[in-house]
Formats: sequence, C-alpha cells, structure tokens
Amino acid sequence: MPTEPTKQLETFPNPHPERDYQIHIRIPEFTCLCPKTGQPDFAELDLVYVPDRACVELKSLKLYVWSYRNEGAFHEAVTNRILSDLVAATAPRYMVLTARFNVRGGLYTHVIAHHGQRPPGLPEHGL
Amino acid sequence: MPTEPTKQLETFPNPHPERDYQIHIRIPEFTCLCPKTGQPDFAELDLVYVPDRACVELKSLKLYVWSYRNEGAFHEAVTNRILSDLVAATAPRYMVLTARFNVRGGLYTHVIAHHGQRPPGLPEHGL
Amino acid sequence: MPTEPTKQLETFPNPHPERDYQIHIRIPEFTCLCPKTGQPDFAELDLVYVPDRACVELKSLKLYVWSYRNEGAFHEAVTNRILSDLVAATAPRYMVLTARFNVRGGLYTHVIAHHGQRPPGLPEHGL
Amino acid sequence: MPTEPTKQLETFPNPHPERDYQIHIRIPEFTCLCPKTGQPDFAELDLVYVPDRACVELKSLKLYVWSYRNEGAFHEAVTNRILSDLVAATAPRYMVLTARFNVRGGLYTHVIAHHGQRPPGLPEHGL
Amino acid sequence: MPTEPTKQLETFPNPHPERDYQIHIRIPEFTCLCPKTGQPDFAELDLVYVPDRACVELKSLKLYVWSYRNEGAFHEAVTNRILSDLVAATAPRYMVLTARFNVRGGLYTHVIAHHGQRPPGLPEHGL
Amino acid sequence: MPTEPTKQLETFPNPHPERDYQIHIRIPEFTCLCPKTGQPDFAELDLVYVPDRACVELKSLKLYVWSYRNEGAFHEAVTNRILSDLVAATAPRYMVLTARFNVRGGLYTHVIAHHGQRPPGLPEHGL
Amino acid sequence: MPTEPTKQLETFPNPHPERDYQIHIRIPEFTCLCPKTGQPDFAELDLVYVPDRACVELKSLKLYVWSYRNEGAFHEAVTNRILSDLVAATAPRYMVLTARFNVRGGLYTHVIAHHGQRPPGLPEHGL
Amino acid sequence: MPTEPTKQLETFPNPHPERDYQIHIRIPEFTCLCPKTGQPDFAELDLVYVPDRACVELKSLKLYVWSYRNEGAFHEAVTNRILSDLVAATAPRYMVLTARFNVRGGLYTHVIAHHGQRPPGLPEHGL
Amino acid sequence: MPTEPTKQLETFPNPHPERDYQIHIRIPEFTCLCPKTGQPDFAELDLVYVPDRACVELKSLKLYVWSYRNEGAFHEAVTNRILSDLVAATAPRYMVLTARFNVRGGLYTHVIAHHGQRPPGLPEHGL
Amino acid sequence: MPTEPTKQLETFPNPHPERDYQIHIRIPEFTCLCPKTGQPDFAELDLVYVPDRACVELKSLKLYVWSYRNEGAFHEAVTNRILSDLVAATAPRYMVLTARFNVRGGLYTHVIAHHGQRPPGLPEHGL
Ligand SMILES: [Ca+2]
Ligand SMILES: [Ca+2]
Ligand SMILES: [Ca+2]
Ligand SMILES: [Ca+2]
Ligand SMILES: [Ca+2]
Ligand SMILES: [Ca+2]
Ligand SMILES: [Ca+2]
Ligand SMILES: [Ca+2]
Ligand SMILES: [Ca+2]
Ligand SMILES: [Ca+2]
Ligand SMILES: [Ca+2]
Ligand SMILES: [Ca+2]
Ligand SMILES: [Ca+2]
Ligand SMILES: [Ca+2]
Ligand SMILES: [Ca+2]
Ligand SMILES: [Ca+2]
Repeated sequence: MPTEPTKQLETFPNPHPERDYQIHIRIPEFTCLCPKTGQPDFAELDLVYVPDRACVELKSLKLYVWSYRNEGAFHEAVTNRILSDLVAATAPRYMVLTARFNVRGGLYTHVIAHHGQRPPGLPEHGL
Repeated sequence: MPTEPTKQLETFPNPHPERDYQIHIRIPEFTCLCPKTGQPDFAELDLVYVPDRACVELKSLKLYVWSYRNEGAFHEAVTNRILSDLVAATAPRYMVLTARFNVRGGLYTHVIAHHGQRPPGLPEHGL
Repeated sequence: MPTEPTKQLETFPNPHPERDYQIHIRIPEFTCLCPKTGQPDFAELDLVYVPDRACVELKSLKLYVWSYRNEGAFHEAVTNRILSDLVAATAPRYMVLTARFNVRGGLYTHVIAHHGQRPPGLPEHGL
Repeated sequence: MPTEPTKQLETFPNPHPERDYQIHIRIPEFTCLCPKTGQPDFAELDLVYVPDRACVELKSLKLYVWSYRNEGAFHEAVTNRILSDLVAATAPRYMVLTARFNVRGGLYTHVIAHHGQRPPGLPEHGL
Repeated sequence: MPTEPTKQLETFPNPHPERDYQIHIRIPEFTCLCPKTGQPDFAELDLVYVPDRACVELKSLKLYVWSYRNEGAFHEAVTNRILSDLVAATAPRYMVLTARFNVRGGLYTHVIAHHGQRPPGLPEHGL
Repeated sequence: MPTEPTKQLETFPNPHPERDYQIHIRIPEFTCLCPKTGQPDFAELDLVYVPDRACVELKSLKLYVWSYRNEGAFHEAVTNRILSDLVAATAPRYMVLTARFNVRGGLYTHVIAHHGQRPPGLPEHGL
Repeated sequence: MPTEPTKQLETFPNPHPERDYQIHIRIPEFTCLCPKTGQPDFAELDLVYVPDRACVELKSLKLYVWSYRNEGAFHEAVTNRILSDLVAATAPRYMVLTARFNVRGGLYTHVIAHHGQRPPGLPEHGL
Repeated sequence: MPTEPTKQLETFPNPHPERDYQIHIRIPEFTCLCPKTGQPDFAELDLVYVPDRACVELKSLKLYVWSYRNEGAFHEAVTNRILSDLVAATAPRYMVLTARFNVRGGLYTHVIAHHGQRPPGLPEHGL
Repeated sequence: MPTEPTKQLETFPNPHPERDYQIHIRIPEFTCLCPKTGQPDFAELDLVYVPDRACVELKSLKLYVWSYRNEGAFHEAVTNRILSDLVAATAPRYMVLTARFNVRGGLYTHVIAHHGQRPPGLPEHGL
Repeated sequence: MPTEPTKQLETFPNPHPERDYQIHIRIPEFTCLCPKTGQPDFAELDLVYVPDRACVELKSLKLYVWSYRNEGAFHEAVTNRILSDLVAATAPRYMVLTARFNVRGGLYTHVIAHHGQRPPGLPEHGL
C-alpha cells in the first residue's frame, strides 16, 4: 500500500494540554536538491516543541519530509520553511527546529530556528 | 516466586525530608503495544524527582512498568500518565519523566514531562 | 553547472599496478526507493578494493550512486548489483562492498558482498 | 491493519546465489518471559548468515521475534531454538546468532551459536 | 602495613581559604550491603565541594568509604548520611555528593544531595 | 530472603550439547581483599565458555563471586583459581576467564587465563 | 575550473530576517603559517551567527579560509581578524568564532571570540 | 639547543584588547612530586582566561610547567599557586584553572580555581 | 630559526636491529593540492614499519610531509609515492602507509599501501 | 615512608606455571628526558606477558618506571631496553611491550617490541 509524499501535515489533539511538556522527534532521513547544482543534499532534523492544542502526527510528518525529495532548497530557507509549516499546522507554545546538513565543500552547516518563547520551568533536553 | 504486574505503586518514607535532593531512576525496559497496529513498542524511561514525604519503592516501580506490557498506549499519553501516577503516589516536590521511544517509521520520538517547579539551588544532574 | 545521474562508471589508470594496495571509499548518501511501498530507503556504503589496471573515478562514482535515487531496489539485490557494476567497470583484483541500510520495521540490515580472493599479505583495514 | 505474531518464517529466493555474501540483521527488540519468575526478559539479537537459496523475509522475521513475547524461555535454549528455526526455514550456507541479554542479578549474559562452516574468503564483518 | 576502616574523617587546613574553589573527588569503589537481602551493593561516588577552613584528607576518605563494606544501607539514606558526615567534618561553603548505584532489578538509581548554596561566580565543573 | 555466599557452584544440563556454542557472562562486581594490606580490591570478570554437558547456573555464580568478598587473594592466583573452580564444576569444552582489576599504585592489571583448546570454526566474540 | 583564494567574502540576503535564528558552520581545514618559524599551523574553526540582512556564502567562505594558507598568523590575532572580517561582511546580530589549533609544544590552544550580544531566547546549540 | 625550566612567565601584548575573548590552553603533561612520599604525581591542566593587556607566551608556559617536575606539591596548593602566578604575570580580566590529577589510592581528584568575575555575555566554552 | 620543507629524508641507525619490532608514526597534518582544481586537500597519515638498519628521523619526516603543501597530488599516487620514498630511505623489513583523506564530493577516501611481507609473529597493532 | 626509584626489578613465583596465561599491565605514567633537548617526554606503556617461573612484582615495576624520570632516552631505544630488562628479570614464555609516546612536532610515535613466540591457543586480548 504505497503512500504519497505531501506538504499536508496532519495533527491529533494534545492529550495533556494542561501541562507544558516537550516532544522531541529526530528525523535522520531528510533529503532535497541543491538549487544551484541540482545534486542531492542530505540533513538530519531535530524537532522539539511544546504542544498547545495539537500534536503533529508521525506518519504525516514522514510524508511531509519525503515531499522535499525532488525539490530544490537552500539550507537556511528550507529550515525556516519547515519550521513555519509546522507552526502553521500545530500552533505550538514553543518550537525549535535544527537541521544538520551533510558536509559540502569541506564545510558542515547547521541551521537552528525557533518559534515563540520557551515556557519557564521546562526541563532542559539535550538534543 | 513469581510476582504480578500491577498499577499499584508502593512508597516508603523519605529518610531525609529536611533536604531537597534528587533521585534519578533509569528504566531501560519499558514496553507496551501500539494502539493502532497492536505491535510492541519499546522505550527507555528516566525518572528524576525531589521527594517530599515519600519515595517510590523500586520493586513496585518495576511491577508498575511491567503492567504496560499488554496495554495499548500512545507515546505522548502514556508518558504523561506515568508521570501523573508517580505524582499521585509520591506527591514529590518536583518530578521529570523522560521517555525515549525506539525508532518507528524512521523517526525517533522522545517525550519529556514534568510536575512542579525545580527547587532553587539544586545541582544539575545530567541524564 | 548541474551534472546528471548516470549508471556509466568512469575509471582512470591505476598509477601503481605493481603493488597490491587497497582503496577504501565511504559513501554515506545512498538512497533508493522500496519496491514494495515506494518509500525512500537510505544506506551508507563502504567500498574497499585492490585495483588492477583501473581505479574508479570519484565524481563518476558519485553520479552513479545518485542514479539510484528514483529507482526501486531490494537491499540484497542492489548491493550485489552495485558490486557487479563496479567489478565490470574496474576488473579489480579484489573488491568488497558493504551496505548498511537504515532501520526499517525495527530491524537494521547490512549486506556484505565481495568479488575475488583477498591477495595474501594485505594489511587489514578497519572499516 | 494489525498483524499477528507467528512462529512461521517466510522467505524469498536469494537474488544472487552465485555469490557467498553475508546478510546481517540487528534485532534490538527481543523480549520473552523468565520461566522461573514469569518476569520479562530482554535481549538484542544479531543474525549474520550466508544465504543459499532462500533469504529470510524481514516482516516475517519481525513477527517471529514478536511471538516470544508471552513465552517462557531460558537464555541458552531460546538462542539455540531461534537459530534452529532460522536454519530450518532458510537452509543457509552459514549462520551465526548472537543474543545479548540485559543484566540480571548483576550479571550480563551473551549467547553465540552458529550453524555450518564459514565459507573461506568471506570478509570479516564487525558486529 | 594494613590500615583499618573507620568512620572518623581526617581533615587538613585549606591552603587557600581566600578563594572559593572547587575540589572534586571521584570514588569508584563504594560497596555496602542491601539491608533487605544482605547481598552486596556497589556505587560510584562523586564528591564536589568548596572548602572553607578544612579539606578532607584523601587517605582518611578512603578508609571512611571502606567502613561501609559490611554495613547494611539503603541508597537514599546512605548518600545523605555520607554527605552529612562530610559536612560535619569539613564545614564546607558548599558540597554536592552524587552516588551512582549499579543496576538492581533492571533499574539504575542515582542519588544527588547537596549542602549549602553554590557560591556565585563559580565556574561549572562537568562531573 | 537473604541467601549466602558459597564456593559451591551449581550447574544445569546444557540444553544443546550437539552444538559448540559460546556463553559469555560479564561479572562487574568482583571484590576481594589484598593479602598484603587487607584493603579491598575490585575487578570486572568476563567468563566465556563452550559448554559440554553442564552450564553454570547464574544465581549460583553470583553467590560464588560474593564468597571472595572477605578473602585475601592475589590477582594472578585468584583468576586462575576461579577458572579452575569453574572448570571443575562444568567440565567445559573450552573456557576463558579475564579479570580486569582496578588501578593500584598507578598500574592497571588484567589477567587472562583459559582451559582447553578453542573448538575450530567458532565465531569470534568481542569481549 | 580552478578558483582562487581571496580575502573577499560574498554574501546573500538572509531569507528570513524576521526571525533570530542561528547558522553554524564547521570549517575543519584551516591552515596558515607560524610567523616565528614559518612552519604550517592547523586549526578547526566553528562559526555560529545570527544573521541580520546578510548570510555568508559558503563557497566564498571556503576561498576566504584558503587565503590564509601561505600567510603568517598568530593564534589569537588571526581568530580575531577572521571574526572581524566576517562581521564587516555580514553585519550579524550576533557572531561567535572558535578556533581549535592543533597541539604545539605539547600544548593545545583554543581561541573563542564573539561580536554583539546573544539575542534573548535563542535555543542553545552545542558546538 | 636545550632550554631550562623556569618559574618566570613571559607575556606578549594582547592583540585585541578591545574585545572580551577567551583563550583556552590544555596542558596534558604536568608532573610534580608528592610531598609525603616523594613519588611522582601527574595531572592535566586546563587554563581558560580572558586577557586584558597581556597574553601568556606558550613556550614560556611550557617551561613554567616543567619547573614543577622536581618539586613537592599538594594538589590543592599547587593548583592555586599556578593560578596565582598566571594572574600575577598577565593580570587577566578573568581566569580559570582546572587540574585533573591521576588516580591515587583509588580516588581521582580535580581542583578548579578561578580569579575575577566572568565578563557578562561570554559564550560558554566546553572544556 | 625557520627550517625548510624538503623531499630529503634523514635516518638514524636502528638501535635494536636484532629484533623485529614495529614503529608507528601518526601524521595528522598532511596537506597538498588537488591537481584538477588547485584547491587544498588534507589527510591523516599512519606509517607503520619494521626497521632493518635505519629508522626515519622524526623532524626530517615532518619536513618531508611539509614539502607536499604546494604540490598537486592525486590520492592514490601520492600515497604510493610517499611509501616508495620511505622505503628508499630506510629499506625496512616491512612497511604500511595509510592515508585517510578528508571528505570530497560527499565521499571519504582512504588508501592503504604496503611494502614487503609482515614478519611472522609480530604482535598486531591497532591503528 | 618514601621509596626510591631503581632499575632493580623484583619478581615473585608464578602461582600457576602449569598454564599459559597472560598478564597485562598498563602503565600510564612513564616519563623520561629527550636526549637532544633535555625536555621531558611522556608515554603510556602496555606490558603483556605469559609468565614462566616468575611474575614481575607491581611495586617494583612502578619504581623501575620511575627510574627513567631524569634519564635521557630515545623512543625506540628505551622501549627495547625496558623490554630487555623485563625479559632478563622474568624469563617469560612470551612478552610484548607497547610504548605510546605523546605527540612531538605534530607527530605521534608508538613503538611495539616483543620477545619470544606467542604460545599457540592463547585467547586474544585487546590492548
Ligand atoms: Ca548524515
Ligand atoms: Ca540546566
Ligand atoms: Ca533500546
Ligand atoms: Ca544512516
Ligand atoms: Ca590481524
Ligand atoms: Ca580479519
Ligand atoms: Ca559500576
Ligand atoms: Ca554554564
Ligand atoms: Ca572498575
Ligand atoms: Ca585537527
Ligand atoms: Ca539551556
Ligand atoms: Ca592522565
Ligand atoms: Ca549556555
Ligand atoms: Ca581530518
Ligand atoms: Ca598521553
Ligand atoms: Ca581473533
């Protein structure tokens, strides 16, 4: 039963909205295309968020990540766009997205973007 | 002498209630069932708490963890439920529960929930 | 200046055919599609070989690996096919290909195939 | 669409029977019950084999491993039984099964069993 | 020249009481007996303190740790007792004791207790 | 229900004597006394053996290890004695015992002793 | 198509100036000459910055780093100069440069310089 | 051209006094003598400082460290003395010295001393 | 006192020619230029040899390695050339040279070449 | 009670001469002087041997190692000399000495020398 890549993110209701708690999802298999050369780029993503009313559904997130496979995308722009899409879908209290791109030209690039203010009193969570 | 899994948590009196100190218990063998597919899920739990009057008894905690073996449970919900059960049983000054679930669909999910405010002046404890 | 994925492997003359020596190339960015589900698969490849008259050209190898990006391929078959293509292109004295696929269904699969007999007296090389 | 645990192992034809090559499958989520206490036991399995005519199908292997979840099994016996079942299903040229059980009573037990003779000239594969 | 285990802690004058500085002593060889079963327990201790007038003498600390070898002691109680004994002997400006007990029943327990307030401006020291 | 330390080793019948397979038991909590100073010594033991008719019972092995807690023992002698006792109890086809003693006087000592010849064709097992 | 080393840094417009986000670039291949001895020095650089209107272009950064290859440079001075050049080219909201030089005379030297104040609320990013 | 150990520390002018930046020097080869037994002691030192007008010259620092080779020195006293000597020579804005001594009597001792207040806004630097 | 890069290797007499023993020299700072692009390449070299009459002098080896800094060199050719130069200078009983080049185009290349036959009975030495 | 460095090595009778077994002693604190510059050199030694009639006494070995503290010694020569002295003192069935010297001039040197033939059937022991 093949499923299709999609930019449409699904959510489910946060089962514990009375608490500020963190969900961390590691996504090791992000790949897109370099807009300059057309060649594949690869990255590992780390999403950490404090849900409000909605949590992102895992299978939907996987299909969303897959949707970049044949698209051209710059490192800085695509990290911010994914963050914005996830914010639009889930309206979280707080969200951080880290993208660790594979080495290119001998240089390793990571981009770290966030939305909202970290709620006070949250335990730290080492990425 | 087999013992039985149970949701009943046992406690013992905190031997040093005059101090704010931390107890960290790592629980590497949590398993439950995925409510969607019925297939087994696995996680490693880290419980850190500052006891008030009661500490959780270790063998009882082991039987409590065992009680999820044949139950369906979503990642976010079960982490919050375990935290709530431990809070109900021990009424701690502060408690954090981290659940690191095994990879599913290429994605790794961690959930980190806490109860109460971290008492000021506690030394950090690297999980 | 975009370049194109291709199954055509380029070679260059071995500059030191008088010696049995090893060339090890690690290729962390292999990706293809699962023939059953159509979803992306990922692997890290390690190629070790003792060249005879020809060495595989690096940029050509990169384009060859890229050529699997939109093809369906089973783990065992694709590892053996890549080995066979590299053997056909370079006619090495000895060659080993290891493919470490990412976890699927909670299981991690590695495939290790070789061609020819390891020449006696070669120093070991820890992959 | 839930699937069921089963002792029935499925296979598919080895796509490259002309070569001696190794397939390594790491299975981190084995669990059974201690026959003495009824309490859960956990292990990580590593299967390495050289297929002859048949390869073990991954999803089927996962269901097979699941089938031990509610069965009592001693460390030494269950490792040998799994090896025997896999040998019966695939008739491999060579097979090694390693089971690393979690600590019990302060002791860590690993069991390593094999079937057949390692074909000469196989590259080493570090588990 | 055998020496004897003892609960008596020796000290020497702090050679630099004009500064707030930290002394960290790692003690990998703590062992006592489980009060319930009489069986041996093992832990690694980490002591960090800011001395005031007195520093704990190392050989004396070793004999003190040895003194628990044949005594029954619960994890939480013994960690707090050792901290209290060290505080009584040295009257430090600040002191933290961490005890990492070996796995028991599949669970790993750490206890972290402190005395006093961390002086402002102290550099962090990763245990 | 306290149990007692004992030099008496219990065994159970090898469930698969038709195979040469390895059992590896890691014992991190060995402690004895230094015959010269009376002070505690600590070591981690690794036992690897190929059983013939008998396997060593784990709880019995734990009580056996415990029995050295209050005995004086030199590093070289005690490693050989433990090997001899295990050989006497189980009559294995092959057995290796490694003892890694903690640092003393700035020096780290390991002792590795074996009994019998390693059966041909056994897979290597990294300790 | 050889390109040339240059002190000229290229930039591109920050695609998301509405957010404070971090870009981390690891540069493992910095080399210059020791002004005292003329011998090569080597370092790994880590650049972390919060862009304002401009981001540093990666290929240009690589050529810039290359430009030091035949220049004499002291550790402390060159780290500060590179930071100043990057600040001049990109006018970032915040920037940190770390240079980890290889061991010389048995001593390992790291230099860490920054420009501006870290914007409040930025997630930490482990270098 | 042998050089001589000396307690005389050389400095050079800070090339960038307009910035608060950190210099970290790791010194793995400190050795002195135990005042009680006359036997050698060993430590690894980590010096981190924010220079004001002067930086410590590396070769001079190496000769200074060498000068302790035949001197008796207690752990706590010598760490503080080295810090004081470096402060006297360089008058830094901030300085931290960590000394990690090798294990003695089964105990590992680290001493961490500092001078001055950490300037606000300095990036953290993981030792 | 600057010294000059040179292809001239100096040696000194083997102080123990009566024994077959190994000398391993790790050289982390090799750099040359890519003949195609003119851009810098970097590698870490590991030299292991059994000397006969001559040993390679360390400072001379450093100057030799430096001599490649401004030369174009292909990975396979330069590794073999360095091996040949070292063989010519020292006439060793056995020699292995490993060159681990930094990632280029997403691929990591190692080259391992040797001269002569490993003398029987040499202990293994993990690079 | 200070003791003195000495070249005199003490031994004790092998308690189990009927077996070929290995003793491994790690010696992290070797230091001598460079004969060219007079500056200190440092190394970590690993001694592995199969005793015949005599074992080397640990305290004596420590004093022996100490005796090099103020002597000039080249890497290759001193490793062979220490091996020869240990062979002379203990007449072992087999002995290997590895010396890992600290980095000098950017190069890391290890020397590995042995005496006698490794007895057949000895288990491997990872240094
Ligand atoms: Ca990656
Ligand atoms: Ca914190
Ligand atoms: Ca796990
Ligand atoms: Ca991967
Ligand atoms: Ca080997
Ligand atoms: Ca091998
Ligand atoms: Ca331990
Ligand atoms: Ca801090
Ligand atoms: Ca230990
Ligand atoms: Ca480096
Ligand atoms: Ca933080
Ligand atoms: Ca050390
Ligand atoms: Ca921070
Ligand atoms: Ca490198
Ligand atoms: Ca060292
Ligand atoms: Ca082996």
